[in-house]
Amino acid sequence: MNTFGKLFTLTSFGESHGPATGGIIDGCPAGVAIDMDCIQAELDRRRPGQSSLTTSRRESDRVEFLSGIYGGMTTGAPIGFTVKNENQHSDDYNDLKDVYRPSHADFTYQMKYGLRDPRGGGRSSARETVARCVAGAVAKTVLRQKGISIQAYASQIGNIRLDGSYTDYDLNLTETNAVRCPDAQKASEMEALVRKIKGEGDSVGGVVSCVVKGAPAGLGEPVFGKLHAALGAAMLSINAAKGFDYGDGFDAPLFKGSEHNDEFFNDNGNISVRSNYSGGIQGGISNGQDIYFRVAFKAVATLLREQKTVDKNANEVILKARGRHDPCVIPRAVPIVEAMAAITILDFVLIEN
Amino acid sequence: MNTFGKLFTLTSFGESHGPATGGIIDGCPAGVAIDMDCIQAELDRRRPGQSSLTTSRRESDRVEFLSGIYGGMTTGAPIGFTVKNENQHSDDYNDLKDVYRPSHADFTYQMKYGLRDPRGGGRSSARETVARCVAGAVAKTVLRQKGISIQAYASQIGNIRLDGSYTDYDLNLTETNAVRCPDAQKASEMEALVRKIKGEGDSVGGVVSCVVKGAPAGLGEPVFGKLHAALGAAMLSINAAKGFDYGDGFDAPLFKGSEHNDEFFNDNGNISVRSNYSGGIQGGISNGQDIYFRVAFKAVATLLREQKTVDKNANEVILKARGRHDPCVIPRAVPIVEAMAAITILDFVLIEN
Amino acid sequence: MNTFGKLFTLTSFGESHGPATGGIIDGCPAGVAIDMDCIQAELDRRRPGQSSLTTSRRESDRVEFLSGIYGGMTTGAPIGFTVKNENQHSDDYNDLKDVYRPSHADFTYQMKYGLRDPRGGGRSSARETVARCVAGAVAKTVLRQKGISIQAYASQIGNIRLDGSYTDYDLNLTETNAVRCPDAQKASEMEALVRKIKGEGDSVGGVVSCVVKGAPAGLGEPVFGKLHAALGAAMLSINAAKGFDYGDGFDAPLFKGSEHNDEFFNDNGNISVRSNYSGGIQGGISNGQDIYFRVAFKAVATLLREQKTVDKNANEVILKARGRHDPCVIPRAVPIVEAMAAITILDFVLIEN
Amino acid sequence: MNTFGKLFTLTSFGESHGPATGGIIDGCPAGVAIDMDCIQAELDRRRPGQSSLTTSRRESDRVEFLSGIYGGMTTGAPIGFTVKNENQHSDDYNDLKDVYRPSHADFTYQMKYGLRDPRGGGRSSARETVARCVAGAVAKTVLRQKGISIQAYASQIGNIRLDGSYTDYDLNLTETNAVRCPDAQKASEMEALVRKIKGEGDSVGGVVSCVVKGAPAGLGEPVFGKLHAALGAAMLSINAAKGFDYGDGFDAPLFKGSEHNDEFFNDNGNISVRSNYSGGIQGGISNGQDIYFRVAFKAVATLLREQKTVDKNANEVILKARGRHDPCVIPRAVPIVEAMAAITILDFVLIEN
Repeated sequence: MNTFGKLFTLTSFGESHGPATGGIIDGCPAGVAIDMDCIQAELDRRRPGQSSLTTSRRESDRVEFLSGIYGGMTTGAPIGFTVKNENQHSDDYNDLKDVYRPSHADFTYQMKYGLRDPRGGGRSSARETVARCVAGAVAKTVLRQKGISIQAYASQIGNIRLDGSYTDYDLNLTETNAVRCPDAQKASEMEALVRKIKGEGDSVGGVVSCVVKGAPAGLGEPVFGKLHAALGAAMLSINAAKGFDYGDGFDAPLFKGSEHNDEFFNDNGNISVRSNYSGGIQGGISNGQDIYFRVAFKAVATLLREQKTVDKNANEVILKARGRHDPCVIPRAVPIVEAMAAITILDFVLIEN
Repeated sequence: MNTFGKLFTLTSFGESHGPATGGIIDGCPAGVAIDMDCIQAELDRRRPGQSSLTTSRRESDRVEFLSGIYGGMTTGAPIGFTVKNENQHSDDYNDLKDVYRPSHADFTYQMKYGLRDPRGGGRSSARETVARCVAGAVAKTVLRQKGISIQAYASQIGNIRLDGSYTDYDLNLTETNAVRCPDAQKASEMEALVRKIKGEGDSVGGVVSCVVKGAPAGLGEPVFGKLHAALGAAMLSINAAKGFDYGDGFDAPLFKGSEHNDEFFNDNGNISVRSNYSGGIQGGISNGQDIYFRVAFKAVATLLREQKTVDKNANEVILKARGRHDPCVIPRAVPIVEAMAAITILDFVLIEN
Repeated sequence: MNTFGKLFTLTSFGESHGPATGGIIDGCPAGVAIDMDCIQAELDRRRPGQSSLTTSRRESDRVEFLSGIYGGMTTGAPIGFTVKNENQHSDDYNDLKDVYRPSHADFTYQMKYGLRDPRGGGRSSARETVARCVAGAVAKTVLRQKGISIQAYASQIGNIRLDGSYTDYDLNLTETNAVRCPDAQKASEMEALVRKIKGEGDSVGGVVSCVVKGAPAGLGEPVFGKLHAALGAAMLSINAAKGFDYGDGFDAPLFKGSEHNDEFFNDNGNISVRSNYSGGIQGGISNGQDIYFRVAFKAVATLLREQKTVDKNANEVILKARGRHDPCVIPRAVPIVEAMAAITILDFVLIEN
Repeated sequence: MNTFGKLFTLTSFGESHGPATGGIIDGCPAGVAIDMDCIQAELDRRRPGQSSLTTSRRESDRVEFLSGIYGGMTTGAPIGFTVKNENQHSDDYNDLKDVYRPSHADFTYQMKYGLRDPRGGGRSSARETVARCVAGAVAKTVLRQKGISIQAYASQIGNIRLDGSYTDYDLNLTETNAVRCPDAQKASEMEALVRKIKGEGDSVGGVVSCVVKGAPAGLGEPVFGKLHAALGAAMLSINAAKGFDYGDGFDAPLFKGSEHNDEFFNDNGNISVRSNYSGGIQGGISNGQDIYFRVAFKAVATLLREQKTVDKNANEVILKARGRHDPCVIPRAVPIVEAMAAITILDFVLIEN
């Protein structure tokens, strides 16, 4: 199950330390002009080593398209692409090949498959999200032409969180700091926290919030194809994701129906709503308002400190810490959340049209 | 998109006020003895009118199986079933046919389809979940034979919430009160709250927590078929669901990696973990520990009080309140959450085996 | 796998001698007026006991719609329906429950499932095609509005075959005789053959040809979603089907490229073709010409004569012949071929639009 | 729709003259030893320029695996691979970019997508089947370990056809001649025919027959997942395929039920059949006998002679013939038929197990 989507689909491949990651985008409409710089720019937002806050793994992450584009335009044929893994240090992992790192996928892969690729987590590595960013960049290109935009940002890192909703911030400021938080003061606090955690060889999680603007009413299917269920599945497929909610989400229980029903009114002849607790989705279908949601991420499991664990023979061992380390996934999760949102929304746009 | 699942699937049909709801269960293993009383018991847990807390709509909700079972055993053929809608009052809805009820699916269905069945919300009615409970009961029957059990309960209604995790309660007490909460004191507070809200003609939401015990390691697929992503999609497909998380979920950001990594140890020769913040799922795959998750539900949109809204021509109108009303979905959501969990887990069991 | 289609889907259920057969049609566009008489008329074409040539099983085969239609119009919700099995004689099959009838599915079902419903072949009975005719009738209704028509006919029964292609006959004559052959002389010969075979307690197969007119260019997907591959899968899913070809099909090898390439020419400003050996499909995609194909059917396995066989314990037994018997499936296969063609073509129309 | 299969899937990409073709194999069991030489050998069987009978396009067709294999073993992760297109002569196609070649996909692609990649047919080129051969070779590797073998051969080219069934020949002789026909005399006649046709700048079609040995009883699903329907869809997805039948196929109508029912008998305690007109499939499910089927192919549309046609503006033009040309696809279709059979059969083996 390495395919996502129904009409617009991404099938991805690639391990952390194999020769390349990549994927196939299928179902992209024909005749879409692809701007290679835009695609690469999205990949660059996900790239390790962007700032001193993230992992120092260095990859140029250049995407190479192998099919489906001719004369700068999509042809309707599947778009195959690869991104080389330049930074392969397989030898780094020899002493890890029989050890189960806590809260990693080592143990479960071994249970499921009877063997595993120990190099950097193999398929469970977040390196796999490279393919999502490529497909997401293509999806964004199509959506942009339809007036649909997607913007995510860090709304919480550790215990530092934005108090307001997305409407309270200028989201254009998101890319102005290393943590991708649109509130300068909070961003500064988040950066300080990440630096402190990094210094401890520890890691910290957070929350990414996302808003989709310009989506037409009618996206999503009742019952088992609800738009928010598809968005939830998309987000929960991202490494380290622990939760998803939309609209007032986990706060909804605190409101009475009379308090958070979104009242309709006549807005100069148009039907509009006085509030949007629904998060732009009612009965599983978009209503034309902004769609907004949150994704919770745990602290990454790799630490630069010793941990107790066992090997495959149940021998207790001390996991030695060394090498590269990403103290907080949130800044790099921002473009991945956007990418998965774009893939999901475009799929429903194509189903509807 | 009225089909859920990959190998074990439910396809459902039926509107609130049509002659019947029902569905087709496909992919059920052959040779499973079906206890009709068990199936009906699950349906009865979902049935309206069980207690004074829920809607007074009266339905006997008797399931009739039309195929796929012979001599009390499943044959491997699709299991078709229907449940009659006894309580049809289509005339009740004549004055609603052009009105968009706030935070209902009336507006979005009209935008999507250009017309809608106005009787009781039509397809968007929670009546559709009848089919899920039937399929869930069949799935539970199969899972029980494999030693897998599923137990959900109300962990929050309005601002009254359980402070502990599922391990702090005797979940066998869940069915001893009308709100399905395993803590008698909290249950009593929740009941009082629901009664008060009902008296106000208002509604209130809450959270259902669920635990799956006995699931083997190895369920779930890396990347786009992660077990928690499938569970999330399943839960978010339930009416009024607003969020999903698993393990420490939305609390995860508050922990450092060193605090919530689940340390492996040698437990008398077996590999075990000292904690289960992962919620039984690592890298998208079950690790043999308890799987636990939460689902947030909003207050239902139907109120027994007047609300401002508009009709399809954007005329502002006052929505008259009358008739039946379910002030809180949480008690009846408990069996639905279990049903969707059972359908999802069984699907992965079949994929794995 | 009892679901067919991608966007317009049929999921069916029902055994020969259970209480009912039926299905769920999902993905039907909203706002389509459904003429119940047209639907029933399609079912009547499939009904047993229409003429003295077919099985004498008597069923009124009345379809009951349970959802998805409101005020005579489709709503976009799934269309659930049932057709009662009136003619249940389960006792007839007691002495067959351990016997493997030659060339039936008795043996393979037992191998696959470890048990089987012996009543009339259970799920392997052609009674299942009732659901296809209902879905096909709905699909035809939608296609008719788009100017697409589908017409099948008997082109061969036993060794009596039509020499010409569909363009040589007036297909409106198809329904004027009991074998559904548009050539009166051949129809008469076919009828005589079927009567003779019936008198011998034997059975005979044949070929159904089908033509789709009015399909726009552009239906079908390159590579794995070729239109003719989908049509082939649809036709080969019909009971007793043994082969499928389109255009010049199995005769194609006899032509050189220079002989059967379809030359384009300028037809008063429009691009047209001088021949249609391609059968309206080039590169897997419709080209706007008539789509035509053939389906071969074997003689049905049920005979009214004794046959040698074994029971489940490998004891050799004589299969006693008695009861009802359909000497030739071809006349009743004609509407089923049309139904499956309609379902398939509509699915691609919806994918394309 | 560039994905084939349900649990074992191939998603392919690549045009005739892009930088590479390739694909992703998903769902391959973990722990399968991959012999690179065996994989390459299958690709070599499909490779152009093998003999003087086929196209002179020269490609080394070296497959490069990018993921999913570690230490020579499959890991359960998706297997990404590429095969470079070495022989790109895009300039050859400049004068074809507005011309619709007869019976090619030029016209239909233009109608569907509004534009097309004119280089060598783009995505409609048989070059795409490279990916199928790679996936088929992997599937064969898995099947071999389960005792299942697949063998195809040329049974007809033009009007020269084998009179017998597969049981009349030593299929080990198939690879001993350039046309891949197990009858030396017929092979010689076929070769002479192809040479003659080639000399005329013309092309000729034929039939590939295939037999699957060792498949267990129980593969395939009743109704819409019938084994022969899946095989049919697989075969009809191959370029230039015009028809598919299995068992006695299109000859079935010539037999009475009493003549071709496959009588069961007690074969030293085991249940066996005296004939296999069913082609190893009864009721859509394998019965443990040999599975055999045929695929008809038309003559390829590319000719080395002038043809009349039109350009996109409906101007009548003479299509100039030049360059490379494959007078008969049959020899190279043999490994492709095997590959698609292997992919299909393995998928059902995995579904069943």
